[in-house]
Amino acid sequence: MANDASGENRYRLILIQGFRLPEDSPYLHRKLTGPKEETLMDYPVVAPLLDGVDWELHGGAPTTYGNWAVENRQEFIHSGAARLPIVKEACESGKYNGIVLLGGGEPGAQEAREIARPYGIPVASCAFSQMHIATMLGNRFSIIDLAESHSMYYYNLVVQHRMTERCASLRMIDFPHDRPGEEPGRPLHEEKRKARAGERSDAIEEAVAEAVAAIEEDGAEVIMFSCSGLFWLQPFVQARLDEMGWEVPVLHGYRCAIAVAKMMIDLNLSASGLMFPGDRPVRRRRKRLF
Amino acid sequence: MANDASGENRYRLILIQGFRLPEDSPYLHRKLTGPKEETLMDYPVVAPLLDGVDWELHGGAPTTYGNWAVENRQEFIHSGAARLPIVKEACESGKYNGIVLLGGGEPGAQEAREIARPYGIPVASCAFSQMHIATMLGNRFSIIDLAESHSMYYYNLVVQHRMTERCASLRMIDFPHDRPGEEPGRPLHEEKRKARAGERSDAIEEAVAEAVAAIEEDGAEVIMFSCSGLFWLQPFVQARLDEMGWEVPVLHGYRCAIAVAKMMIDLNLSASGLMFPGDRPVRRRRKRLF
Amino acid sequence: MANDASGENRYRLILIQGFRLPEDSPYLHRKLTGPKEETLMDYPVVAPLLDGVDWELHGGAPTTYGNWAVENRQEFIHSGAARLPIVKEACESGKYNGIVLLGGGEPGAQEAREIARPYGIPVASCAFSQMHIATMLGNRFSIIDLAESHSMYYYNLVVQHRMTERCASLRMIDFPHDRPGEEPGRPLHEEKRKARAGERSDAIEEAVAEAVAAIEEDGAEVIMFSCSGLFWLQPFVQARLDEMGWEVPVLHGYRCAIAVAKMMIDLNLSASGLMFPGDRPVRRRRKRLF
Amino acid sequence: MANDASGENRYRLILIQGFRLPEDSPYLHRKLTGPKEETLMDYPVVAPLLDGVDWELHGGAPTTYGNWAVENRQEFIHSGAARLPIVKEACESGKYNGIVLLGGGEPGAQEAREIARPYGIPVASCAFSQMHIATMLGNRFSIIDLAESHSMYYYNLVVQHRMTERCASLRMIDFPHDRPGEEPGRPLHEEKRKARAGERSDAIEEAVAEAVAAIEEDGAEVIMFSCSGLFWLQPFVQARLDEMGWEVPVLHGYRCAIAVAKMMIDLNLSASGLMFPGDRPVRRRRKRLF
Amino acid sequence: MANDASGENRYRLILIQGFRLPEDSPYLHRKLTGPKEETLMDYPVVAPLLDGVDWELHGGAPTTYGNWAVENRQEFIHSGAARLPIVKEACESGKYNGIVLLGGGEPGAQEAREIARPYGIPVASCAFSQMHIATMLGNRFSIIDLAESHSMYYYNLVVQHRMTERCASLRMIDFPHDRPGEEPGRPLHEEKRKARAGERSDAIEEAVAEAVAAIEEDGAEVIMFSCSGLFWLQPFVQARLDEMGWEVPVLHGYRCAIAVAKMMIDLNLSASGLMFPGDRPVRRRRKRLF
Amino acid sequence: MANDASGENRYRLILIQGFRLPEDSPYLHRKLTGPKEETLMDYPVVAPLLDGVDWELHGGAPTTYGNWAVENRQEFIHSGAARLPIVKEACESGKYNGIVLLGGGEPGAQEAREIARPYGIPVASCAFSQMHIATMLGNRFSIIDLAESHSMYYYNLVVQHRMTERCASLRMIDFPHDRPGEEPGRPLHEEKRKARAGERSDAIEEAVAEAVAAIEEDGAEVIMFSCSGLFWLQPFVQARLDEMGWEVPVLHGYRCAIAVAKMMIDLNLSASGLMFPGDRPVRRRRKRLF
Repeated sequence: MANDASGENRYRLILIQGFRLPEDSPYLHRKLTGPKEETLMDYPVVAPLLDGVDWELHGGAPTTYGNWAVENRQEFIHSGAARLPIVKEACESGKYNGIVLLGGGEPGAQEAREIARPYGIPVASCAFSQMHIATMLGNRFSIIDLAESHSMYYYNLVVQHRMTERCASLRMIDFPHDRPGEEPGRPLHEEKRKARAGERSDAIEEAVAEAVAAIEEDGAEVIMFSCSGLFWLQPFVQARLDEMGWEVPVLHGYRCAIAVAKMMIDLNLSASGLMFPGDRPVRRRRKRLF
Repeated sequence: MANDASGENRYRLILIQGFRLPEDSPYLHRKLTGPKEETLMDYPVVAPLLDGVDWELHGGAPTTYGNWAVENRQEFIHSGAARLPIVKEACESGKYNGIVLLGGGEPGAQEAREIARPYGIPVASCAFSQMHIATMLGNRFSIIDLAESHSMYYYNLVVQHRMTERCASLRMIDFPHDRPGEEPGRPLHEEKRKARAGERSDAIEEAVAEAVAAIEEDGAEVIMFSCSGLFWLQPFVQARLDEMGWEVPVLHGYRCAIAVAKMMIDLNLSASGLMFPGDRPVRRRRKRLF
Repeated sequence: MANDASGENRYRLILIQGFRLPEDSPYLHRKLTGPKEETLMDYPVVAPLLDGVDWELHGGAPTTYGNWAVENRQEFIHSGAARLPIVKEACESGKYNGIVLLGGGEPGAQEAREIARPYGIPVASCAFSQMHIATMLGNRFSIIDLAESHSMYYYNLVVQHRMTERCASLRMIDFPHDRPGEEPGRPLHEEKRKARAGERSDAIEEAVAEAVAAIEEDGAEVIMFSCSGLFWLQPFVQARLDEMGWEVPVLHGYRCAIAVAKMMIDLNLSASGLMFPGDRPVRRRRKRLF
Repeated sequence: MANDASGENRYRLILIQGFRLPEDSPYLHRKLTGPKEETLMDYPVVAPLLDGVDWELHGGAPTTYGNWAVENRQEFIHSGAARLPIVKEACESGKYNGIVLLGGGEPGAQEAREIARPYGIPVASCAFSQMHIATMLGNRFSIIDLAESHSMYYYNLVVQHRMTERCASLRMIDFPHDRPGEEPGRPLHEEKRKARAGERSDAIEEAVAEAVAAIEEDGAEVIMFSCSGLFWLQPFVQARLDEMGWEVPVLHGYRCAIAVAKMMIDLNLSASGLMFPGDRPVRRRRKRLF
Repeated sequence: MANDASGENRYRLILIQGFRLPEDSPYLHRKLTGPKEETLMDYPVVAPLLDGVDWELHGGAPTTYGNWAVENRQEFIHSGAARLPIVKEACESGKYNGIVLLGGGEPGAQEAREIARPYGIPVASCAFSQMHIATMLGNRFSIIDLAESHSMYYYNLVVQHRMTERCASLRMIDFPHDRPGEEPGRPLHEEKRKARAGERSDAIEEAVAEAVAAIEEDGAEVIMFSCSGLFWLQPFVQARLDEMGWEVPVLHGYRCAIAVAKMMIDLNLSASGLMFPGDRPVRRRRKRLF
Repeated sequence: MANDASGENRYRLILIQGFRLPEDSPYLHRKLTGPKEETLMDYPVVAPLLDGVDWELHGGAPTTYGNWAVENRQEFIHSGAARLPIVKEACESGKYNGIVLLGGGEPGAQEAREIARPYGIPVASCAFSQMHIATMLGNRFSIIDLAESHSMYYYNLVVQHRMTERCASLRMIDFPHDRPGEEPGRPLHEEKRKARAGERSDAIEEAVAEAVAAIEEDGAEVIMFSCSGLFWLQPFVQARLDEMGWEVPVLHGYRCAIAVAKMMIDLNLSASGLMFPGDRPVRRRRKRLF
């Protein structure tokens, strides 16, 4: 990797997990400690994008609402708020020139961009990055989600990113995360294990069925996933669509977010100061239009 | 006020402040203790809507990010998260059949609706209520805001509520809240004092100028304010437009939110369970459309 | 009910029927005379909203085009024009502070708002009120209609109220009103009788089927009815969806219109004078934007 | 003019005035009797489009609301309803294969299309025809109107015809029609007289100023007029823009409506039976989408 | 046909084929030489629109990319560029006052309008004309296409003409043109022959099926075809829908384009000079809006 | 630069000029021969993005319409068609994994994507890349253009890329390219020379004025240029806005296109096969939606 004028690696990224469950949580199905390559989910799929990149992985802020995974709006706002000090510290450290927010529902992404913009540091998140890349690849895209509450939080993200005309549909497979007080469902990590072991996985079967329905019925030309808990499906669903002859890109949230961060670093851009103004900007506009 | 079938007052509201500054904050310009009629901002303007209503006022959650007023995105997410336990407790108490979120930028409003929906309790907030009422009164509305950072947070609310086609513009007067590390500006509470004393107030003059520009240049047919710190301007700006012959409604955020809460109580409605689903709803949809 | 400053009841409503068929019309299935509680359709469902309200019921203007119910565009424009003198008289009488236009297709509603605005009297109609409330409850709503011609008139209302992005679909059950020269169909009043007697009603079955299709296929999150002849279905369809586990609000046009009228009275608002200008307003705008 | 297979003239039009004032009305500035060439406003400008056409002119339905010109919403609905029997009779007569609705605000146009569609007779009106032709000529068009109340009625037409994205602006010159109880204004017929006598006309000056503002500020690429009382301005404004070097088409409502009627006759088309269904169509759709 | 003031026929059209295959092309299924009535495809259907019109038929520019029919984007841009000299020559000749671009995908249409505008000559093309007429007949229209690559080129035309909100769907029958290196498919000219001979044609059956699906599922109220190779289907599909009781207009591209050209000639209009400016226009705008 | 698994450089780009003027053209102001670093316009600004990249520069296809620069629609379609063989050859060569189309108006870009997609090679062009990046940085962007005809061609690109809601305005400075038969204007290459020599340049002054107007009046939050002849302005306008305190990104077309190409290579993505289908795809969709 060519270096900066400063002699530093061109890309110096921090990847920040969406949240961190306590080590003793029964809902924890992810390795929390060890080399970053082992704790970054789906590392083999993501690795090519990190090749030659200086990167660190932050384990995320401990959940403040309980010991289960983020899924509904309340949990998202908690995670969003909790992640901001990590973002701020990363900006102040001077060690990074790009921030990648892991976590499919991008908790705290708007706020993180507000924090990082004055430092000239781009923040790339998974929903934003996937949706923008999807519109560069096809006329319309569909999203596959895993839980009712999550999906309607995510629906709001589609609206917020002004993608309602380009989003063909948000489709569901039924794999909500387990949580206290609810009957355990079909565990996704078990689906992943099966899939990687070459066994049949209902999650894959259902995701393919929804992807095909999105293509045939809703007009989707690109497929993406909402929750990072689904990102492991990407290569499997892509392969299945390829086999079927559907020439449709299936996106992976982490890959897209890293790629967007690198592109923004290349361009030396983060965000418009008019979209994310500081508290006392030098220039003020008399009006904004929509 | 006629009572419910249950013999209770028809409207049993809790009004929750957007946030609570510490008592010793130099940025505090609002009474924190005393009768609710004295601590509810703009009570005389709001009173007619509360006439005959059983209501309580909650002072809001203490700010978690510092001792100054909420203004930028980071502060909003903190306030939003902090307010949710109050909402939850209010729902569980069984004492209220409507929740009014004070605070112009409606921190935590989406999440509060998610919490309250299963209880059948409507949550009314100031941005949502004003925008919806504005579209019932005119073709397009404009918003008057007071600070650059606040306005772009608010811009996102306009997008989120899908009002971009109906919002003529978001216009600015320059009265940001004071905050540590920034030069003190023109204090809004001083403007309010002057106005109420019959003295000339720059805030009123500038707000009228922007309202007229919104009407003449942007096509606004209704005027509203974003930040609750501006709501006291409503009767003054309305009076000035009336004098000038502009027959344009100027909205007050608290009045609108209370009115929406009462309407929803009348209708026995809170929100669609499809927009705000619980964690394990009985019925699941295979797809959502935009 | 608390009174006004004037000592009058806060809400003084006149409810105006959409049209009045001649007493000898074979197409008349509604009581024309007697106490208002008996002539207001669906009174028991509507009563809670009128509790404590001073209200009168006007029987509507006699139909000018024939002795059958309004259904197509021609009949709507006739009814719209015929209703205006009643609106004008109500405004001039000084007796009311709110006007509720009964009749699902809101004949004459725009014109009535033009008449009433200078009096500061809000006019609430069934399509307008339902659509606006629907967008406060969910992302998208669907409408159930009863006749081909009626539905395309109503389609225009959706466009006029700028709800095309929020209206998921307009769905049909086939229960057109009887009219001269056409084969008699399945009489809706007979369906209502059966339903209320606890018998099976095709109208309910078909409405539920369309509501579910709207939810599952079109993305509806709220259900409403177009023609007031269908409003009696509301509690039945709501109950059926509840039983099925669909947490979807089903709206009743009269309830919504009354609730909107009361809200507007609470807020002391009617309409923007820029949307409904008088003939010689003091102020004129040089341009309007869309 | 080549004849039909039937040996009849290809184009057999009836032109129907928007309304007819009583002969003794002080607000009457139009000839009511005499040869059609003398009673059709702007005949010389319109004549080329009627060359070779079999046409008749109907003087319109007497106004039912008073003896002054149609301008506000109430007057429009009255005129709309009053014109329908003329439309129906024209269809039933078998004498015409096209109907042109004179009157800039096209009172009764939607209803007339509903009546005429089963006869296969196209109905062309001035707002509809101008807007559609405008979108065939440029990206955006602006409208020039003459009165506040009229313009907001017309605003609704722009929305109804789904032209909000293509309509750059609706701009005003202040020439409302005289009416009882209001101070007389600047009479438009006097402006027309001056203009045709080669004298200076304020109406022309102001219309040109608004057209140029629409071009320079609002992005208009085509100009049209709303009220037929303004149509005489078309050649004057076109000439002035030509002189200034603005290569912008200025439309004439009658010319456009006649041209659309002839085009529809050429194509043997009137309207979709799904947009304007009869009372008992053979085929019914289960749903409509927006 | 009445003549111009100049004594010339009112309508002097040149119809220009989309492209011309070499005479020895195995993919040629159209007569290249002979009287214009024999070389204009579907002449009997088009003839009524040309009755009394002075018209010439230009055989189109030879294909520059190969000897097969235009179908994908590459072939369209070649044909578009190749057709322009013919357009320019036609304008310069002074012989025509209207240009009709045959070829369903309207290669070179935007560029042709740029060329012809300074001459005041309207250019009518098949996609543009059909879409605009369709929006005059119904709320939404659907398009029937014959090949995957062609359809996505055509999709872009729908976007370019700003018809995405009015286009219900683009539906497919699978009849791509034969081309080198691909398995021969079902020849469309053979389908046409069968249809005209009264035999069963799969193309008709499938087109009717898609038209009905568009009506019932997508909300289409008007049907049109994209590729001129499908235009012969128009009377057959119209007849079949008529028989089924669907009162839905089915458009023919040539008929629509000729009708639009004649209408523009009647109106003496071609295009706005702001949409199609010359290289050095007298007037320049400082900004354009969307 | 890390290499591919294949041992090749990760990024192997071909940059293709928009067109090539003859060497003896009086309108030629660009070096045609010599090292790629000298013939690539603005190389110093673009270089950081090409650091570590294997890249080649193709001089573009000779202009087929004359010896002056591409500016109007006719010239664009010619250049678009002429560039395709270069694209095809680049794909077939196997030497590149990304194609960058130089030329601000991206002639032939859609067609080039159709060609390259089956090879899995992304094609990045300047309008597409800038617009997509602009929407990632701010709510709305404005474009600065240099000639009337060019700007309306470019207007179509904004529509085609479905950016009308995000494009605040297209603003003009008046620097059309010289062409035969027209008075010579102010030469842009002379402006560039002055600017780079530290002299005053009218082009910069006017571009800054339009950028500020776009920010203050149109709501732009990001600025971009349309024609590559304007790209040299980017660092100058950015610096000037920076000095003024406007925190607004100003984009450079080449930089954006290269960055997008690299991002797509990183992601191993080119385009959806449904948006750019081959001639006989394995899978066909029955319908497309918009």
